[in-house]
Amino acid sequence: MEGVFITLEGPDGAGKSTIIKLIGDYLKDKGIEFIMTREPGGTIIGEKIRDIILDNENIDMGPETEALLYAASRGQHIHEKISPALKEGKIVLCDRFVLSSLAYQGVGRSLGIKEVKSINDFAIQGIEPDLVLFFHIDAEVSLERKTKNLEGDRLEKEGKEFHNKVYNGYMELLNMYPKNIKIIDATKSIEEVLEQSIGEIEKLLISKEG
Amino acid sequence: MEGVFITLEGPDGAGKSTIIKLIGDYLKDKGIEFIMTREPGGTIIGEKIRDIILDNENIDMGPETEALLYAASRGQHIHEKISPALKEGKIVLCDRFVLSSLAYQGVGRSLGIKEVKSINDFAIQGIEPDLVLFFHIDAEVSLERKTKNLEGDRLEKEGKEFHNKVYNGYMELLNMYPKNIKIIDATKSIEEVLEQSIGEIEKLLISKEG
Repeated sequence: MEGVFITLEGPDGAGKSTIIKLIGDYLKDKGIEFIMTREPGGTIIGEKIRDIILDNENIDMGPETEALLYAASRGQHIHEKISPALKEGKIVLCDRFVLSSLAYQGVGRSLGIKEVKSINDFAIQGIEPDLVLFFHIDAEVSLERKTKNLEGDRLEKEGKEFHNKVYNGYMELLNMYPKNIKIIDATKSIEEVLEQSIGEIEKLLISKEG
Repeated sequence: MEGVFITLEGPDGAGKSTIIKLIGDYLKDKGIEFIMTREPGGTIIGEKIRDIILDNENIDMGPETEALLYAASRGQHIHEKISPALKEGKIVLCDRFVLSSLAYQGVGRSLGIKEVKSINDFAIQGIEPDLVLFFHIDAEVSLERKTKNLEGDRLEKEGKEFHNKVYNGYMELLNMYPKNIKIIDATKSIEEVLEQSIGEIEKLLISKEG
């Protein structure tokens, strides 16, 4: 059996990090082998790249540099962790992936969705998610959570206009890439959000077995 | 007047770093404003990226990661240093640029010239050299100098096969991209190499004025 690659996406404040853990608990109970990861994925090289991206001292970072560093970190994550796990037949649960870069750098930084997709295609070496769970919340809710965070890193400290662009970017992307993306209403209760998420995963696993 | 962008390329051991200084002396004597730079170009962000690329501890770096990190460092170099200098009308002399990545990562790491060019096009934001001085030496001479360097960084420590591929890559690139590339016979004396280099630069400056 080949592995299954599932990513969680959506604006901050949608509860992805809570839900990914609960999905992990569910898979564990079922005895299904999986890894849970997030970018930069705990690779040493990825962590070093992340330090450069998020360091508040690096105020004059060019938008292209930022996008290329995210892609580099993702390339290493694929190389060291995701690709080997998939080859071992495991399920890979990943908090954020390419769609985040398309929203944050492609739209938020105005670099263009097509352009940022192209450098990410180079990074991911053909490894695309089998399922993208998109956690949808209101722009208002997302913005409120983001702009409250005054202690945040270089990206979290960006103003309301930037995060509004990112949010609108996500909405645009949902229309552009419907393939494999399932929209989850993240304004509902945790129980309901989890149930819908697991429902989508089970459908995928059944279709893979069949 | 707009600035003029001149890059020096070629395998290691061709004497680029010696010649670039002598070209600088010549421009200084002439009273022409210029900056002399090399990748990562002394930007703080670029230096941090370079540390990751060359660290001998990072033995499991994926080839895509390496290529994206070079492109990120180049993007920052353009953003912080090269582009502002050109806007001020200066001459920019740069030791190594995109051609090095096409040879080292595109051919040396077998990632493909077209693929590596694509991520570099993203990085350089349309800023192409007006003149590429290519310092040509024998494969033998280049290899001898490289493989002697046992104290080198992660890339310098690569074996003979890798550096042979890089050398052949350069030869392939000379046929693919003749535009703006001038081949300098770097086996000649320093005086002759410098004379030919300055000759090409003067031709360019005259054509720019005309």
